[in-house]
This record gives sequence, C-alpha cells and structure tokens, in this order.
Amino acid sequence: MSLRTWPRLVTLEGGEGAGKSTVLAALRGAFEAAGIQAVYTREPGGTPLAEQIRGLMLDTQHEPATDETELLLAFAARAQHVRATVLPALQRGAWVVSDRFTDASYAYQGAGRGGDAAFIAELERRVVGIRPALTLLLDVPVDVGLARMRGRGAADRIESERNEFFERVRQGYRDRAAAEPARFEVIDAAQPAEAVAAQAVARLRALIAATAEGAA
Amino acid sequence: MSLRTWPRLVTLEGGEGAGKSTVLAALRGAFEAAGIQAVYTREPGGTPLAEQIRGLMLDTQHEPATDETELLLAFAARAQHVRATVLPALQRGAWVVSDRFTDASYAYQGAGRGGDAAFIAELERRVVGIRPALTLLLDVPVDVGLARMRGRGAADRIESERNEFFERVRQGYRDRAAAEPARFEVIDAAQPAEAVAAQAVARLRALIAATAEGAA
Ligand SMILES: Nc1ncnc2c1ncn2[C@@H]1O[C@H](COP(=O)(O)OP(=O)(O)O)[C@@H](O)[C@H]1O
Ligand SMILES: Nc1ncnc2c1ncn2[C@@H]1O[C@H](COP(=O)(O)OP(=O)(O)O)[C@@H](O)[C@H]1O
Ligand SMILES: [Mg+2]
Ligand SMILES: [Mg+2]
Repeated sequence: MSLRTWPRLVTLEGGEGAGKSTVLAALRGAFEAAGIQAVYTREPGGTPLAEQIRGLMLDTQHEPATDETELLLAFAARAQHVRATVLPALQRGAWVVSDRFTDASYAYQGAGRGGDAAFIAELERRVVGIRPALTLLLDVPVDVGLARMRGRGAADRIESERNEFFERVRQGYRDRAAAEPARFEVIDAAQPAEAVAAQAVARLRALIAATAEGAA
Repeated sequence: MSLRTWPRLVTLEGGEGAGKSTVLAALRGAFEAAGIQAVYTREPGGTPLAEQIRGLMLDTQHEPATDETELLLAFAARAQHVRATVLPALQRGAWVVSDRFTDASYAYQGAGRGGDAAFIAELERRVVGIRPALTLLLDVPVDVGLARMRGRGAADRIESERNEFFERVRQGYRDRAAAEPARFEVIDAAQPAEAVAAQAVARLRALIAATAEGAA
C-alpha cells in the first residue's frame, strides 16, 4: 500500500491547548456557510472501537503502556478510523476534518517518546495509506498551551508528561512542517483565537477553491 | 532489535479446543513436581492492560476490528506482555509458559486473515524481539477442536469464524512447525488427553535437562 493524498482530507495538529478544537469549530462554520458536507472527527478515536483504544492509551486504571504498546495502539486506532470513518466519507465525496492524524504519531510516539521514524513510516504505509492535502499546525510555546489546559479536569496519562516531552513533540511537529511545506500551514497559535481561526479558514477556503477548480 | 531465543520460554499453540489449557495444567504439574519456579501466562493478555486489549479484540460490543486493527492490537498486547511479564520473569531466571505467543499471529492474523507474513515478521523483530526455545503445537482436526468447545458459553468474535478460517489457521501453524522443526514439537491432539499431556511433559523434561546441562 502506498500513500495516497486525498484532496478533501484536512488535519489539525498541535500540542495540548494549542487550540485545535477551537479551530475545528471555525472550520465547521466555514464549511456550513459554504453549504459543503464535511465529517468532523478526531484521533485517537473516531469510531466506537477506536475510542475504546483511545481509552486504553490515555487512562490510568492499569499499568502504563510501554512506548511500543502506545505506538501500536495509536496505529491500531488509526487503521480502524481510516477504514470505518475517513475513507467511506472521502469516497462518497465528503470533506473530512480530523483533529489529529498520522503526524501526531511522528510527533508524540516518534519525537516525544523516541520511537524510530522509519518504523512509524512503515506503519503509515502499511496500515494508513492516506495523507491529507492540508495540515494546519497550531504552533504555540509549551507553557502557553499547558496554561490554557489548566482547570480542565484531571490530566490523562499523556497530559501528565513533563515539559521536556512536550518540547520534543513541538519540535517534532515543526520538523515535519519544514520537510513538507506544501502540505503544512503553520499558524502562530499564541495569537488571539480570532486571528488563528481567520488564518485557518483563509487557508481552507483557498484549498476548497483549488479543489473545485481541479474537479471542474 | 533482533530475535533472541530464551531457553526457559515455552509456548503452547493450537486452534480452539486443541487442549492448550489442559496441557498447561500438566506442564505446571511437572514444574511443581520438579520444584522449578515458573510463570504461567497467556495471549492475548498476560498483564492488566494487555487483558483489556484482548477484550477489545474479542468482544462484540462495538464494530468489528478490521484485519489491520486486529493485527496491531495483537502486537500491542504482545509488546506489553513481553516487557511487563515475560522478560522480567526470564531475566530473574524463572521459566515462562505462555498459552499462545507470536506464532499465533502468523497463524491467525497471517494465514487466517491473509495478513502479510513479512510485515508480521517485522513487527516480531521490532516489538517482540524474543522467541521461545520450545513450542508445543497441539494439532487437531478443526471439527474435533470445535466440538470440544461446544457448551462453553457464547462464542467470542474470533471463535465465531467459519471453518475455512480455522483450516487456514491450522495449516499456518503446521507450516511454521515444518519450517522450524527444532523449536516445534507437533503433538497429535486428537489423542486422549493423557497421551497428549504425556508427550508434552516428556518434551518439557528433555528441555529442562538440556537447559540444566547447558547452565552447569
Ligand atoms: N488562540 C487562543 N488564545 C487563547 N486561548 C485559546 C486560543 N485558542 C484556544 N484557546 C482556549 O484554550 C483552551 C484550549 O483550546 P482547545 O481548542 O481546546 O485546544 P486543543 O483542542 O488544541 O487542546 C480552551 O479553553 C480555548 O478556549
Ligand atoms: N486430548 C483431548 N481429548 C478430548 N478432550 C480434550 C482433550 N484435551 C482437552 N480436552 C477437552 O476439550 C475442551 C477444550 O480443551 P482446552 O484445554 O480448554 O483447549 P484450548 O485451551 O486449546 O482451547 C475441554 O473441555 C477439555 O477438557
Ligand atoms: Mg481538543
Ligand atoms: Mg484455553
């Protein structure tokens, strides 16, 4: 299986509290205003089984997952999400916006945990097989993001990591964006929410216009 | 990570109702009679988290796992089992007997579901890294094994497969045994339980003797 880029697949990436959920709501507003059908989903999760896998990755009811276990659980959930939710929507012509996707594994399980990027790339080719046309990377200093998360309730297993972990995750995301500038739009997410949303929506509108032209 | 064979790791393999649990009890009797410390475990499972992953693979509360999801869940559970249960026991010098291990993924997710054996081999090298010195394969005709399972309560997701699936699993196991005759002991598990147990225990005693000599 080789990687196929789907023109109507858009992903949101970034660390904790970067503003992904906030931007997702703004993108939804833009799609609805344009009368375009889209599916909004998230990772890990996006199907009943994948949400259960997410629970095993994040909860603290049992012994912590080893790094290898976390990596394979992330891709198990993604394999399910792609086949049960993402591809069916894309194949019927809908747009799909996913709050996190494969880049998150390169950043968290790769750069964050020290997982081998070549192995992650092989998992991507073997069990994911698709890439988004556009990835909005919400980039924010770690302490700014974490401050936004406070008061959100108990931290899950990954949210409880130390700052150095989140610094590696942030750098992992930035490195991926630098390596694929055409796919990534890096947004300074320390800006006010309105400015972040405006940049995200502008980039999405450009993609919609380009995609419509391509289809016409 | 390359594959290391552990002299004190013994695995039991075979289809549904082949008699693995029955043989495991016999092996336990032999270890206890000899005053040898051993850990008895199973896959998928063998740690609290891995048992939860097993639940997601087998239960029917959510949409079924795709083949890729099932494969990655199996190896996620195994990665956890190896690091949290199997290796700690082996490293302190205990024996470990596992009711199923990596061969089961070649048989079920590979031969049964059609998963690529090269990918399974890469997962084995990358996240398992260990091999048993002895694998007892309990080989029984599919209908004999399934008949023994009847009256055991509701079938789980994999037990509900069709006979052709179990025939492929059986052949997958036999092919692995033929390729590695030194590691595998194939036991005709259609024999009475006492005969099966006797052959299994005799082979284990030979391994214990060889291992003690090697260590002396
Ligand atoms: N650009 C922003 N500036 C300030 N606060 C923000 C901004 N974007 C989001 N927030 C707030 O920060 C918190 C986390 O945002 P959220 O969108 O849930 O982040 P994420 O989904 O990336 O974890 C929320 O309370 C949200 O209202
Ligand atoms: N050799 C045998 N002949 C007949 N019945 C057997 C034999 N081995 C096990 N059984 C019975 O068959 C059923 C399944 O055996 P079990 O050891 O639980 O199989 P497995 O663990 O491989 O699924 C049990 O009721 C067991 O008592
Ligand atoms: Mg969010
Ligand atoms: Mg059993």
